[in-house]
Amino acid sequence: MHIVITGGAGFIGKKLAAALLASDGVVLEGQTKQPLEKLTLFDVVEANGLPADSRLRTIAGDIADSGQIADLITEDVDAVFHLAAIVSANAETDFDLGMAVNLDGTRHVLEACRSLGSTPRVVFASSVAVYGGDMPEVGYDDMILNPQTSYGGQKAAGELLVNDYSRKGFVDGRALRLPTIVVRPGKPNKAASTFASSIIREPLAGEPAVCPVSRDSVMYVLSPRRVIEAFLHALALPGEAFGPARMLTLPGISVSIGEVEAALAKTAGQNVADRIRWEPDDMIQKIVSGWLPDFDAVRARKLGFRPDESIEEIIQAHIEDELGGVIR
Amino acid sequence: MHIVITGGAGFIGKKLAAALLASDGVVLEGQTKQPLEKLTLFDVVEANGLPADSRLRTIAGDIADSGQIADLITEDVDAVFHLAAIVSANAETDFDLGMAVNLDGTRHVLEACRSLGSTPRVVFASSVAVYGGDMPEVGYDDMILNPQTSYGGQKAAGELLVNDYSRKGFVDGRALRLPTIVVRPGKPNKAASTFASSIIREPLAGEPAVCPVSRDSVMYVLSPRRVIEAFLHALALPGEAFGPARMLTLPGISVSIGEVEAALAKTAGQNVADRIRWEPDDMIQKIVSGWLPDFDAVRARKLGFRPDESIEEIIQAHIEDELGGVIR
Repeated sequence: MHIVITGGAGFIGKKLAAALLASDGVVLEGQTKQPLEKLTLFDVVEANGLPADSRLRTIAGDIADSGQIADLITEDVDAVFHLAAIVSANAETDFDLGMAVNLDGTRHVLEACRSLGSTPRVVFASSVAVYGGDMPEVGYDDMILNPQTSYGGQKAAGELLVNDYSRKGFVDGRALRLPTIVVRPGKPNKAASTFASSIIREPLAGEPAVCPVSRDSVMYVLSPRRVIEAFLHALALPGEAFGPARMLTLPGISVSIGEVEAALAKTAGQNVADRIRWEPDDMIQKIVSGWLPDFDAVRARKLGFRPDESIEEIIQAHIEDELGGVIR
Repeated sequence: MHIVITGGAGFIGKKLAAALLASDGVVLEGQTKQPLEKLTLFDVVEANGLPADSRLRTIAGDIADSGQIADLITEDVDAVFHLAAIVSANAETDFDLGMAVNLDGTRHVLEACRSLGSTPRVVFASSVAVYGGDMPEVGYDDMILNPQTSYGGQKAAGELLVNDYSRKGFVDGRALRLPTIVVRPGKPNKAASTFASSIIREPLAGEPAVCPVSRDSVMYVLSPRRVIEAFLHALALPGEAFGPARMLTLPGISVSIGEVEAALAKTAGQNVADRIRWEPDDMIQKIVSGWLPDFDAVRARKLGFRPDESIEEIIQAHIEDELGGVIR
């Protein structure tokens, strides 16, 4: 089996790659387990830091270049995780780049898969940024999409394409709307949500972090562990399980920033939680206040997707997975 | 004022052109009336049959060619009605053509408008084909979009672009989701809905018409008169009136095919209604059964859009507007 991951040098791409390489084969529901023969990571830079493995290939290129994507998705490709994206704040400041990567890039992936004639599985990373405007306290599966950012609009359009290409039998697609992923390892990125990870990650590493939003701000979050599980589960599920819409919102948990702070104190000590500096930023507060606070992910839960138990569990998982169990 | 109509050789484009030429100026809400100085109709063929008028220019070209659209939407353009589209059944059989016209064509129009830097008004013709899957008896403004055709998917993606380009201040857009337009004048087209007009139009012209669906099939319809009113009203409204979503579903009326037959008999005589031949077609029946049967267009009514009073009124308007009052 040959799997391609676009955005393969990103942290989710690399974790997904590591999980695939560590598994003893990929099971697609209703089929026997197939060995992973080849794993190709595509991104703007070559993915690094992964264990040496003869099955692994890393390619640097441009998702917005249809020719490169046609070369990437070769006849032997069975499945594609399409994670490559320009994140929210970046797509907002560079509209054309967002369109080229988030919309055209998705089309190139779908077209390349279609050209194979073998209906490969495509798992598309969408986002709860497709929601916006007037929202209820708790979102629901049939809630209307109303993106208020270019990133959200491009992801929503990408979902429509994944759905239609699947209906036409060109690909066997599925789109997962990701909650805010907490705790992202590494450095802050250009997403408006980057502080959500920083206020946990930096204090645990002995560094201060700025929190630009109020303690009563609420987020809908999912951990890296669970998002990797979700991607693998989405690959395994038969397409028909999704019914007439191939897109769904993943189950997450709803937490306030105050609850994050309290969980950090409980898990790592008050001195760690005290490393959060509270510096309100009206612009970011406004963006975060427009986010989906909670979601009742009935469809996804029925299909076997699952959220984290608690924010404490998320913090503990980060300490184990990224810090070798050591808090500074 | 210079207005461009894409799809200008289609029947809605021509009626809209005639209405604009006949008016003594265009009023944009909050602004004074402006004289129409130039009206450009763009389509795959040159629009014909319109009264000679020095303000009128007809251009034949390809909406899928970005260069042609950049040339079309010149600096003096104040508003664009973007009606050009590949209709449902055609977009289903020729997927690439549908994508090129319905999605790329819309992007070209938006990009050309954006490049002007003057935030022109764009009125985009969308469709209730953006709805699908499990639907309630009566649709509502916040109902989720779930297109089950490529045409519907492309229109939904186009709406997202119109909305985001408007949010970014690139255009001042608004997208109207059109009900099934009844009675379309002229010949049957490649839309799955074409019979809906044929079963009124052909009998009134003394010809037989085939009805491929059952009498209890229900449609959500709007007349040509009202759709022209709606486009002009949408142009006049200030963009802010639409709130955080620039797309809305127009008010229509819900009628069964049996009611259409009865209204035809009542308006034109039983002998005319008897010209409908009932020849069930499972494929078309299946498509029509998946259509939105009714919609409570609260937002649009609040903004001043209005439906027809009855199917009898729609038939009578067709007799007046297209047949010079004469039934054969």
